[in-house]
Amino acid sequence: MIDLSNEFAIGIDIGGTNTKYGIVNHRGDIVEKGELRTDAFPEIDDYINALYETLSPILKVHADEGKMKGIGIGAPNGNFYTGTIDYAPNLHWKGVIPLTKLVTAKFGLPCSLTNDANAAAVGEMNYGAARGMRDFIMITLGTGVGSGIVANGQLIYGHDGFAGELGHTIIRHGGRKHWSTKLDGSLEAYCSATGIAITARELLEKNSNSLLAKYRPEEIDSKLVCDCALKGDETALEVYRFTGQILGESLANFIMFSSPEAIVLFGGVIKAGDLIMNPTREHMEKNLLPIFQNKVKLVFSELQEADAAILGASALVWEMRE
Amino acid sequence: MIDLSNEFAIGIDIGGTNTKYGIVNHRGDIVEKGELRTDAFPEIDDYINALYETLSPILKVHADEGKMKGIGIGAPNGNFYTGTIDYAPNLHWKGVIPLTKLVTAKFGLPCSLTNDANAAAVGEMNYGAARGMRDFIMITLGTGVGSGIVANGQLIYGHDGFAGELGHTIIRHGGRKHWSTKLDGSLEAYCSATGIAITARELLEKNSNSLLAKYRPEEIDSKLVCDCALKGDETALEVYRFTGQILGESLANFIMFSSPEAIVLFGGVIKAGDLIMNPTREHMEKNLLPIFQNKVKLVFSELQEADAAILGASALVWEMRE
Repeated sequence: MIDLSNEFAIGIDIGGTNTKYGIVNHRGDIVEKGELRTDAFPEIDDYINALYETLSPILKVHADEGKMKGIGIGAPNGNFYTGTIDYAPNLHWKGVIPLTKLVTAKFGLPCSLTNDANAAAVGEMNYGAARGMRDFIMITLGTGVGSGIVANGQLIYGHDGFAGELGHTIIRHGGRKHWSTKLDGSLEAYCSATGIAITARELLEKNSNSLLAKYRPEEIDSKLVCDCALKGDETALEVYRFTGQILGESLANFIMFSSPEAIVLFGGVIKAGDLIMNPTREHMEKNLLPIFQNKVKLVFSELQEADAAILGASALVWEMRE
Repeated sequence: MIDLSNEFAIGIDIGGTNTKYGIVNHRGDIVEKGELRTDAFPEIDDYINALYETLSPILKVHADEGKMKGIGIGAPNGNFYTGTIDYAPNLHWKGVIPLTKLVTAKFGLPCSLTNDANAAAVGEMNYGAARGMRDFIMITLGTGVGSGIVANGQLIYGHDGFAGELGHTIIRHGGRKHWSTKLDGSLEAYCSATGIAITARELLEKNSNSLLAKYRPEEIDSKLVCDCALKGDETALEVYRFTGQILGESLANFIMFSSPEAIVLFGGVIKAGDLIMNPTREHMEKNLLPIFQNKVKLVFSELQEADAAILGASALVWEMRE
């Protein structure tokens, strides 16, 4: 048996504001972590240099202790096949960025890239709620709605690397127009943190007898809605019932696509706990064919939100072909 | 190199009325074919015996010429993992039928089973419009709407073997109630042959100035609607525009799930040609994120409808582990 205990990988999670990184071993222990600003570097070359400055002292230490196998990265619009970040709307770097090429040139290490939701799914599969599962769907409910789909034990990338944009599937024909994509009635328009705040503002127009009515519309965000719902505010509770209904109906459709063993929910919105889980489960079950009912595990992520993408990105490294 | 030219497989397509079979070689030539009634045998044991009586003379001939590798079967609700037909609504055999076990016991040959739409997808991947593709979706538009999904070069079966029920995904919240599943607004409720006939009857209630108005409601089926549309009847044309819109919107959702290289349409409904293809393509493109637009090939099956499932079922045999 090969001793893998002294092998390490770097997992990097690139977000619009911050980049988080961790040095990870085969067991999924993050033995060292840190972060740097993403948005401080409008030029990709400066960013790569800053990343190298930050990581090279750590790399030196670990070079003595064991073997650094490579770098795995999760980033918005990261493409696994091409190793490029393509037209990411919330990053400074415009167009197509050949990220893995730049990283490998600078670090002299193999590099693998995927999008942030896929990285979180790989993290969940290796170390979280989907451990050992060959078929599951990860839904990230944050500012937007992302997804990572695993079938037959593999991430589904599609023919071009862009599979898994479940946040943009249409669940309400002619419904709420998305602020950015302009599509009508997409899942993200309702079930993202942004969508939850919009729903709250819409319901307030019909019912001003709510704790939320004390705030200016622009102050209402999903965290405030959650706080008010936990205090028993009926309007805020209705926001979660509606959000859960839309999410549950969408999940039913996804289940009839790939029949996963589990759906793992992840991201800031799940802090609402049962408020979001209960209506989601109810409407998911209600819209399934009988052969799918009472079978699919609907669960929350078991990973720290900050760690999931780092762990998943690092796990990409173990799957690289040498 | 191993000479495979004298290896054969039996492909069997079990439908509610008829069972079709073919002896197929590695190139996908159906060297002999035939059929027997499915519905003449209410007992599964009688059916297996009849299948054996029909096939054994042919098997004897081919036993002299080459090697019969096994039997592949496509059947409604056929489960790849368990080898069983589970609660198929349009077959006489009720409950769970251990089909591969019964077939292997009778024929002394290995047997593999999948559902009919998956078998057609495998046929298309090996010998039809999806040759060489690793990511595509097959949609069968017949009495019902079925599907087979291929990602990373493999059929998606899901954790329980029931993946790919795209006909039952909801595309119109609160829409037309399905006559059998009772779900509201599913793809099958609109885009199956049955759904097309219902749409025609609904439109006729609003507009009696149509060739279709000459027929009694129960005489209207999708073939008649197609004939009238080809004669330029405006109501019949509207039926296809509406059907294509619903199908196109659904396909957009499926594309954002698995980002396939192609979607292959199959089944009786595609005889309408451009009448169904044009509105489907228009609404598919309209509902996609820009990164998916003008990329996905939307094509008709290249296989004879009768042959696709036989070819696909036989191809299951080549993939069996010895």
